[in-house]
Amino acid sequence: MSKFWSRFVNDLVPYVPGEQPKVARLVKLNTNESPYGPSPKAIAAMQAELTDDLRLYPDPSGDRLRQSVARYYGIEANEVFVGNGSDEVLAHAFQGLFQHEAPLLFPDISYSFYPVYCGLYGIDYEAIPLDESFAIRASDYARANGGIIFPNPNAPTGRLLALEVVEEILAASPDSVVLVDEAYIDFGGQSAISLIRRYPNLLVTQTLSKSRALAGLRVGFAVGHPDLIEALERIKNSFNSYPLDRVALAGAAAAFDDVDYFEQSCSKVIDSRGVLTRELEALGFDVLPSAANFVFASHPKRDAGALAASLREQGIIVRHFKQPRIAQHLRITVGTPEQNAALIEALRGL
Amino acid sequence: MSKFWSRFVNDLVPYVPGEQPKVARLVKLNTNESPYGPSPKAIAAMQAELTDDLRLYPDPSGDRLRQSVARYYGIEANEVFVGNGSDEVLAHAFQGLFQHEAPLLFPDISYSFYPVYCGLYGIDYEAIPLDESFAIRASDYARANGGIIFPNPNAPTGRLLALEVVEEILAASPDSVVLVDEAYIDFGGQSAISLIRRYPNLLVTQTLSKSRALAGLRVGFAVGHPDLIEALERIKNSFNSYPLDRVALAGAAAAFDDVDYFEQSCSKVIDSRGVLTRELEALGFDVLPSAANFVFASHPKRDAGALAASLREQGIIVRHFKQPRIAQHLRITVGTPEQNAALIEALRGL
Repeated sequence: MSKFWSRFVNDLVPYVPGEQPKVARLVKLNTNESPYGPSPKAIAAMQAELTDDLRLYPDPSGDRLRQSVARYYGIEANEVFVGNGSDEVLAHAFQGLFQHEAPLLFPDISYSFYPVYCGLYGIDYEAIPLDESFAIRASDYARANGGIIFPNPNAPTGRLLALEVVEEILAASPDSVVLVDEAYIDFGGQSAISLIRRYPNLLVTQTLSKSRALAGLRVGFAVGHPDLIEALERIKNSFNSYPLDRVALAGAAAAFDDVDYFEQSCSKVIDSRGVLTRELEALGFDVLPSAANFVFASHPKRDAGALAASLREQGIIVRHFKQPRIAQHLRITVGTPEQNAALIEALRGL
Repeated sequence: MSKFWSRFVNDLVPYVPGEQPKVARLVKLNTNESPYGPSPKAIAAMQAELTDDLRLYPDPSGDRLRQSVARYYGIEANEVFVGNGSDEVLAHAFQGLFQHEAPLLFPDISYSFYPVYCGLYGIDYEAIPLDESFAIRASDYARANGGIIFPNPNAPTGRLLALEVVEEILAASPDSVVLVDEAYIDFGGQSAISLIRRYPNLLVTQTLSKSRALAGLRVGFAVGHPDLIEALERIKNSFNSYPLDRVALAGAAAAFDDVDYFEQSCSKVIDSRGVLTRELEALGFDVLPSAANFVFASHPKRDAGALAASLREQGIIVRHFKQPRIAQHLRITVGTPEQNAALIEALRGL
């Protein structure tokens, strides 16, 4: 601790992202990236931005991208907020919509960045245990709260909550914001974006890092009632006028516009997830039903940490969390058929 | 105000950036962008990033860019922090290094984002009046404070503070962080980066938006003692693991490595600034001595707001601030010789 630090900096427990190895030729199944590249139209749109105009600031409000998102979902641009990855969008939502007297509620097993944001903004929270099958129970959230947040499908479990259950949670807390973090929704879920006109307390976040294969570009967004979007805009404009660069704005909009490519990529991942699940089960793994681009698996006889370490030695990286309830699980990103086969082959040899 | 907003959101007074017009063919001299494009080597480096690897997350710590900055300044990479524009870097510094009991001090005329950050993070501040010639008086800052921040050269005045005076301010406040915001230092100033090993309380921020002509790419950085850098890292890792995308990281590093191109661009701007200043003076303007890529000018007989509006009608945008002490000044970005000539021509006709 340095005397120059703000008091709270010392107590911050930063988020630890999955390893981004600097050596090539690893089978990288640890951070839920798409196994396929982004839309060729997105690449072309980015190429067109690499001119002397990079000397000029980008559009601070990202209007063209907001319009692309709005068009895709059949909503208005003023119901869309765009940011530098959904992590930045989440951070603004925590600061602008969750700083209240009652505690924020989220599942005990979910995105481990949520408690970190609470530390950053001094937000009180309660982690609500998932049930024994790692499912969210709507009734657990029907209580006094300063906001509710959960990923759907949940991470790292991959479990999907049906839209009716999401609606039950929304209806039970009409006076606080319910944030549905849909980073993985395109791999088998139904987006809650269809509910925003009926629930002014609903904010949905999504990212272009997974289903649109642009993790390297850092673009995310939120959708909700214009009042909620305005809170995010006010924070953004008090933090960084231009969070998205010209290349990212153009690439993201083009990726959204290329619906065919997007749907094909998602289909391929969904198909591979089925194959991978069956093969893991054939090796004796228990695999939770997943609606995401990863599976969450445990083996009744093998230690998950030891398995992850052995795979690492063979150049295959999967994610292992040391948290108590899930210390015997592995989160495995769905790769290409070849990557998945390499994983299964390696597991067979262990 | 919505019932869903955090209490403080309603009181936020966001920063208002200079206009980014969506029509072409304007002579845009309002946001201090470079009149020349970025290094062709930066463009090439960005082109090389537009591959399927965009599906993968970028390096969360931006090591290659930190090394380029460190090499240029003859320092170590752990003395460098990189972020999504110097505005994001400043925001983290306000939260991590300025949240203290005593008020933060900054000049009454300076970057208008500083009071906005104070609002965002609940930081108490005092605005210290510049002297009559718009200069910073070091002795005004030798008092109890929770931090000090000023641009050097100052904006929007363009006035440079000599390095000895910066040092005087640093020496008088050894227990608080002094942040020197050097967005414009490359156009005639001497960077305080040379002082970081002697003053562990010194943090210097810079941007690639001005002298390296990459405003459209959103890259900034801070330099200082590793303890200060660590505070910024802790905040960043509690906010957004990957603030810089792959394209921005590569382009920024290549821009830093291309020293020749950078020096030529700066020289051209400095030369044009001299010409522009003389021509404005010939038209009766008072022009403050500038070490930046803009000039700050007033006319004894002409209203600055009216001048800005008339120029706007002729397709020339300059920046006019309605703040009391400077309401009769215009901040004019140094453009290409042709743009500057168009401005002078237009002013002559008014």
